[in-house]
Amino acid sequence: MQTIQQRFKVEYNYAVFFTENLFDTKNPLLQDFFNEYTEQGFQRKALVIVDEGFAQYHSDLSNQIHSYFAASVSHIQLAPEIINVPGGEACKNDPALFDSLVEAVDTYGIDRHSFIIAIGGGAVLDLVGYAAAVSHRGIKLIRIPTTVLSQNDSGVGVKNSINFRGKKNFLGTFAPPVAVFNDLTFLRTLDDRDWRGGVSEAIKVALIKDTSFFDWIETNTTAIVNRDEKAMAYLIHRCAEMHTDHIAGGDPFEFGSSRPLDFGHWAAHKLEFLTGFQVRHGEAVAIGIALDCVYANKIGQLADEDLSRILDVLGRLGFDLFHPKLSENDKINLRNGLNEFREHLGGRLTIMLLEKIGKGIEVHELDADIIAQSVDYLEGTKIIHAL
Amino acid sequence: MQTIQQRFKVEYNYAVFFTENLFDTKNPLLQDFFNEYTEQGFQRKALVIVDEGFAQYHSDLSNQIHSYFAASVSHIQLAPEIINVPGGEACKNDPALFDSLVEAVDTYGIDRHSFIIAIGGGAVLDLVGYAAAVSHRGIKLIRIPTTVLSQNDSGVGVKNSINFRGKKNFLGTFAPPVAVFNDLTFLRTLDDRDWRGGVSEAIKVALIKDTSFFDWIETNTTAIVNRDEKAMAYLIHRCAEMHTDHIAGGDPFEFGSSRPLDFGHWAAHKLEFLTGFQVRHGEAVAIGIALDCVYANKIGQLADEDLSRILDVLGRLGFDLFHPKLSENDKINLRNGLNEFREHLGGRLTIMLLEKIGKGIEVHELDADIIAQSVDYLEGTKIIHAL
Ligand SMILES: NC(=O)c1ccc[n+]([C@@H]2O[C@H](COP(=O)([O-])OP(=O)(O)OC[C@H]3O[C@@H](n4cnc5c(N)ncnc54)[C@H](O)[C@@H]3O)[C@@H](O)[C@H]2O)c1
Ligand SMILES: NC(=O)c1ccc[n+]([C@@H]2O[C@H](COP(=O)([O-])OP(=O)(O)OC[C@H]3O[C@@H](n4cnc5c(N)ncnc54)[C@H](O)[C@@H]3O)[C@@H](O)[C@H]2O)c1
Ligand SMILES: [Zn+2]
Ligand SMILES: [Zn+2]
Repeated sequence: MQTIQQRFKVEYNYAVFFTENLFDTKNPLLQDFFNEYTEQGFQRKALVIVDEGFAQYHSDLSNQIHSYFAASVSHIQLAPEIINVPGGEACKNDPALFDSLVEAVDTYGIDRHSFIIAIGGGAVLDLVGYAAAVSHRGIKLIRIPTTVLSQNDSGVGVKNSINFRGKKNFLGTFAPPVAVFNDLTFLRTLDDRDWRGGVSEAIKVALIKDTSFFDWIETNTTAIVNRDEKAMAYLIHRCAEMHTDHIAGGDPFEFGSSRPLDFGHWAAHKLEFLTGFQVRHGEAVAIGIALDCVYANKIGQLADEDLSRILDVLGRLGFDLFHPKLSENDKINLRNGLNEFREHLGGRLTIMLLEKIGKGIEVHELDADIIAQSVDYLEGTKIIHAL
Repeated sequence: MQTIQQRFKVEYNYAVFFTENLFDTKNPLLQDFFNEYTEQGFQRKALVIVDEGFAQYHSDLSNQIHSYFAASVSHIQLAPEIINVPGGEACKNDPALFDSLVEAVDTYGIDRHSFIIAIGGGAVLDLVGYAAAVSHRGIKLIRIPTTVLSQNDSGVGVKNSINFRGKKNFLGTFAPPVAVFNDLTFLRTLDDRDWRGGVSEAIKVALIKDTSFFDWIETNTTAIVNRDEKAMAYLIHRCAEMHTDHIAGGDPFEFGSSRPLDFGHWAAHKLEFLTGFQVRHGEAVAIGIALDCVYANKIGQLADEDLSRILDVLGRLGFDLFHPKLSENDKINLRNGLNEFREHLGGRLTIMLLEKIGKGIEVHELDADIIAQSVDYLEGTKIIHAL
């Protein structure tokens, strides 16, 4: 019998909106978005799930959302309960939380043409995104990121995940949202660590792809440290744009093994794990970038001047560039990190290093001794602000 | 700040192969397939998961697979353990089984560029497919279906799922395989119920799309009942082809709410549930088709002659056309089925009915009284072979 050759394409598109005061009834953005969904015979619903770490600063949020829907989006039926989930990495470690979200989908009759609206940091967006992606094989997801990192990186992309028995991001899917709403005012309540944290992802894309963006960040470190919202708005927009461009231009669902946007991430993932997530993702990425830049310099790939500019920007932003866990156990722990990274990505080990500021280059192996020397170097820099 | 408009396409392709004696070292099919995966620097692995209901008839299977890989696919590293899972619907109800598969992915270091090979009926393929799809955000899946239904329908498509707290297919994803291998000889050990079961899916596609295929089935009912392998091979191939064509031609990941291939399925899903899955999927689909055809006839859409040909073919194949659970509780149970179906599909209720043999037509409501009359009609036909 003749072989059947199956072949098809699936198209995705979604907008990333930038706004302020999203749930103010005077802001028509959400209303306009939902007005695209008014087919006859459909009763679409929406279930809102909020990061508690965000909600605690917005005690009126639930009322605001209900008022907004009542006034401006009355054709979408809001589930009566707005669900709060604990924020931060912990929520990705708790399978009961995942189950409770799937239960809520069932309880409130949220179907494939209804919406799940996730409001929160990257961790909550990852958890809710995963629950939405697998319930009924995929409910429409709206992301409302509330941290710098989720507004400029995780929230605008196509991935979600939870941890499985301590293994970071072990379960997940590729599942684009139907829209992302970045509200600048939501960032006001972030502590300095999370305000700064997401900046490392901007430095990451700038370093591998865009010299002038790195120059801009270098010029604006003080404004960023002083929580200048205009500077941050620009940084987030440019970073989000570079991420979405990269996804669309390349291999959105990562069928290959090249992942340039994971520059600095192999050591970062391991460090998050080694510190029980005390070092947060963005902070770990800053250290991971520093480590791989020192490494690139040591193997003669990255000029001294570029290295010192990079470490200087990271330091002035307030990032630590070293953590004692990096050198524990004769570096054996960190060394495992490379293998785990390869395994999670699959296939051949592919690590992005820098050739110069604005230009990355992929390599397929790292030397363990030079990694160890790079760790020692970072320990020596003494850029450790707050152990 | 300017809205970012994200837009991209993801391309999928895979072959459905038809063969006999797949694991015979003289059969080069699998070897040829894996020879496409020989990049330098990759160490790809494969983890095999087998339906116990199939394995019990193939006590030598594990040895055969190990020998085949050793002889012909030595560049792929086979995980030492071949994992057995219980077959049938039960495996989709047990979350511990899902967890154990994800554990195995971790234990054997199966990465995104390695393979999971699922061998079994539709239920096992659904469970394993789901575990593969969400582990590391998607491991390459090879399906080797071992029932008629999985060879001609479920195994060649793009969906997987498990049940969640009794809710059928509540969790799942759209995740195309990288290849499907249909081995005709694997069907020999099926009991008559499962041999027959999958034929209802062929009748389904024939009725909504292809008169001549229905004519062929009508002519060949006796051959099929007598377990003629040549007739079954043709039926499976044509049915698989119509399913894959439909998927590629339309809306592969079902973003819309039209699902013509779910003809006969709204009542079928409910009946499987009402009987605690004692009525199997294919059997329930046969009853669901009968019910919707009687309904279409009662509302004047389907000619008497067509209805009687359809019921006659189903009856001669050995399908029951009625089950007492259909009329229990004043039909209230069955009535809920419509709403659950709408909810699982989402959006507007869309039900495929027949206009004539070979031509379906979608409607957006069904009348509860006429459904009840249709159930009574089926009860009266007395085509109940084996209660
Ligand atoms: N899916 C992806 O592509 C992707 C990419 C990068 C990172 N991530 C994931 O994102 C997570 C990190 O996300 P993150 O950096 O946003 O941190 P986070 O989600 O862990 O949030 C940090 C803390 O900030 C709180 N918070 C959130 N919004 C707040 C606000 N506006 N004001 C005050 N507090 C607020 C949270 O409750 C939490 O306690 C990690 O789990 C990481 O793996 C995912
Ligand atoms: N993913 C999809 O698109 C899709 C489509 C249709 C149906 N399904 C699902 O498929 C499942 C039904 O699949 P099915 O009809 O293949 O039945 P099944 O998987 O339930 O298998 C029926 C029985 O046959 C046994 N078996 C399997 N192969 C055998 C063989 N060669 N010899 C002897 N026994 C064998 C199994 O162990 C089981 O006991 C349902 O869960 C249904 O929801 C999925
Ligand atoms: Zn990151
Ligand atoms: Zn079916």
